[in-house]
Amino acid sequence: MPLLHSWVASANHGDSPFPLNNLPYGVFSTAHSDPRCGVAIGQMILDLQACEEAGLIDLGAGPVFDVPFWNELMEQGPEAWGDLRNRLLELLGQGSTDQSRLEGFMVAQSDACMHLPFLVSEYTDFYAGRHHATNVGTMFRGAENALPPNWLHLPIGYNGRASSVVVSGSDIRRPWGQLKGPDDTLPRFAPSACFDLELELGAIVGTDSFGPVTLDEADQMIFGYVLLNDWSARDIQAWEYQPLGPFQAKATATSISPWIITKAALEPFRCDTPARDFELLPHLRDTGPMLYDIDLEVTLAPQGKVGSTIARTNYREMYYSSAQQLAHHSTSGCPMTAGDLLGSGTISGPEKHQRGALLELSWGGKEPITLDTGESRSFLEDGDTLTLSGAAQGDGFTIGFGDCSGTILPALKDPYAR
Amino acid sequence: MPLLHSWVASANHGDSPFPLNNLPYGVFSTAHSDPRCGVAIGQMILDLQACEEAGLIDLGAGPVFDVPFWNELMEQGPEAWGDLRNRLLELLGQGSTDQSRLEGFMVAQSDACMHLPFLVSEYTDFYAGRHHATNVGTMFRGAENALPPNWLHLPIGYNGRASSVVVSGSDIRRPWGQLKGPDDTLPRFAPSACFDLELELGAIVGTDSFGPVTLDEADQMIFGYVLLNDWSARDIQAWEYQPLGPFQAKATATSISPWIITKAALEPFRCDTPARDFELLPHLRDTGPMLYDIDLEVTLAPQGKVGSTIARTNYREMYYSSAQQLAHHSTSGCPMTAGDLLGSGTISGPEKHQRGALLELSWGGKEPITLDTGESRSFLEDGDTLTLSGAAQGDGFTIGFGDCSGTILPALKDPYAR
Repeated sequence: MPLLHSWVASANHGDSPFPLNNLPYGVFSTAHSDPRCGVAIGQMILDLQACEEAGLIDLGAGPVFDVPFWNELMEQGPEAWGDLRNRLLELLGQGSTDQSRLEGFMVAQSDACMHLPFLVSEYTDFYAGRHHATNVGTMFRGAENALPPNWLHLPIGYNGRASSVVVSGSDIRRPWGQLKGPDDTLPRFAPSACFDLELELGAIVGTDSFGPVTLDEADQMIFGYVLLNDWSARDIQAWEYQPLGPFQAKATATSISPWIITKAALEPFRCDTPARDFELLPHLRDTGPMLYDIDLEVTLAPQGKVGSTIARTNYREMYYSSAQQLAHHSTSGCPMTAGDLLGSGTISGPEKHQRGALLELSWGGKEPITLDTGESRSFLEDGDTLTLSGAAQGDGFTIGFGDCSGTILPALKDPYAR
Repeated sequence: MPLLHSWVASANHGDSPFPLNNLPYGVFSTAHSDPRCGVAIGQMILDLQACEEAGLIDLGAGPVFDVPFWNELMEQGPEAWGDLRNRLLELLGQGSTDQSRLEGFMVAQSDACMHLPFLVSEYTDFYAGRHHATNVGTMFRGAENALPPNWLHLPIGYNGRASSVVVSGSDIRRPWGQLKGPDDTLPRFAPSACFDLELELGAIVGTDSFGPVTLDEADQMIFGYVLLNDWSARDIQAWEYQPLGPFQAKATATSISPWIITKAALEPFRCDTPARDFELLPHLRDTGPMLYDIDLEVTLAPQGKVGSTIARTNYREMYYSSAQQLAHHSTSGCPMTAGDLLGSGTISGPEKHQRGALLELSWGGKEPITLDTGESRSFLEDGDTLTLSGAAQGDGFTIGFGDCSGTILPALKDPYAR
């Protein structure tokens, strides 16, 4: 598929993250308008609430853009998703007969403030990257017991906290928590000293289900993808996670990028999961290429300083796809809901510079990394700005993910002062 | 506090679960009406939507009973909760001047169908009963390592799945899952053979918070309590739970009783948490009596047969109160939301007959229990009906919880047949 041309000139560059091929969905506001749904095209955003009110978009089952979130469109199902994309390709394509009307509904991205693009129903985080799981397992249990016995047979996941999900640009307050170092006799309550990022992709479930779903059904249920940073307090996690898993270590915040990249936009970039050590059970066995070839990058900028790229990797490094995670999630009959967010798990590659968390990059703090500024990092410091970015590279076009960033604020001096 | 008298005669018995002292909140429908909020009194339900529409209840900030769930009242905060209770005591008390108008807004409980009383925002399940944690730990890790090192310092919890919460009376379908026995070389996908109940109390968070809350703030945030059965597939759990905790084992369903027992109704039954092995950190340290003296019971009735009481215990057996769980839940800055449901964890007493799960009662299946019918049980069988019941016994009155029951349906023959 080549670059598709739009009458919005800034979209017609091979390196624009938002060409007509992409059409990512977000929620924006301006100095003059309340939050509303929009689609990014080049350096602009098309106001979809205005388009719907003007009769330029009509999906046939009542308004879907009268609310500042994408859940109403999601709930109309995959056919409506396809109809909307086709209509947007028509409206925004070169030669559109509606160009002059649409020009009045365009907002520059530089004038817009982005909001959470959808209401998060529930949030589940997985642990489906083999390199990450192996690295973490080696640090905690030694190389021979790195992967738990179940890991190669099912995508391990745990329920996270939907209320903690925030949009890129939100500041992240260093948490307090109960900590106990290996040499401490008793735990203490203190700010986390090992606050970390996790580079992930988030899959957004777009339709409800009420029983086990097949892998193909699961794939059809996915509406789109965002970048996701699962902020993690490693010292809180170390003390709390046995036996029931991470809890407060992961509950401070989870940042997502503001633009939902649709499955349709990513279709040309599908690729296979890696070779399996064990054949998966039939209900989890790949039915086709289920991952995507998406280049990913993490930069860390100390306060007031230039950013350093601390990791480069690719989503194709995952062992389990989002569809496999969703199919597994439903096996017990667990009802799934439009707006559920599934974190992929940390995406690390096999090489040291491909690791998606400081825990791995600094090997638990034993091998601090050096930034371009000459500073070193084992874990995050106050004032650090972390930015995740991602793009799928097509033949003459790019499918960009909007950046996912957040700046670390110092812990509250007294969390209970009122 | 003595029995408070109502003009509803069936409420004026010492053994009525719903005297004027109780006033529990539910959502009901009848053959003639859609679901709506109501309060139980004796054998009747007062239709609060009708009362509000008739101007008999006006909390001052717009309608709260125009929706079939209690979240709108919750969001008005503790002062409104108190105002409503005072108004109901007035309306339903002996000598009420509104009796004749209210008689038209009464429905017999026997004519009503009960629904989920509130929209569950997120669901968290704790593991805060010492006897349960010790029993389970002993079975899995031996008596010397029964309690994990963190257990006596913080209330261990994990995020559950809000979409799985159903009201009492909903049938429970035995789940499929990935299982691997100790002698199997590879896992298989099959119906759970070790499906179990967990007797818990659920605390309902009634107001939002956005940062760490103190123990007293947490207690003020709790709207009320329900009985909760955290259905658990022990064989799925055994294979999946390391290292990130229970996931599909707990996602099939979580049943709650239909009536929210308010904190105000339980106030006379407050009691202390047990003696501590370690003093808790200041933010978790008891500020007063934080548990409640509530007698609890589990009955199991095989299909078409009489039920046997399989466990009797009391909520005062818990090591951590719901307020301590909520305070811990917020330590990392995790935003809490009105409608969050917090499961207490399985409530077991020190004696064998006081254990709140078959896993403990049958000691992992090694010591099956015998029912009054002569049948034995290690775990649940298809057709079994499980009923949790609870009551706080006052001086001449009872604060009853509505029963929480569910019947086990056989697993689907093929979960992917369409």
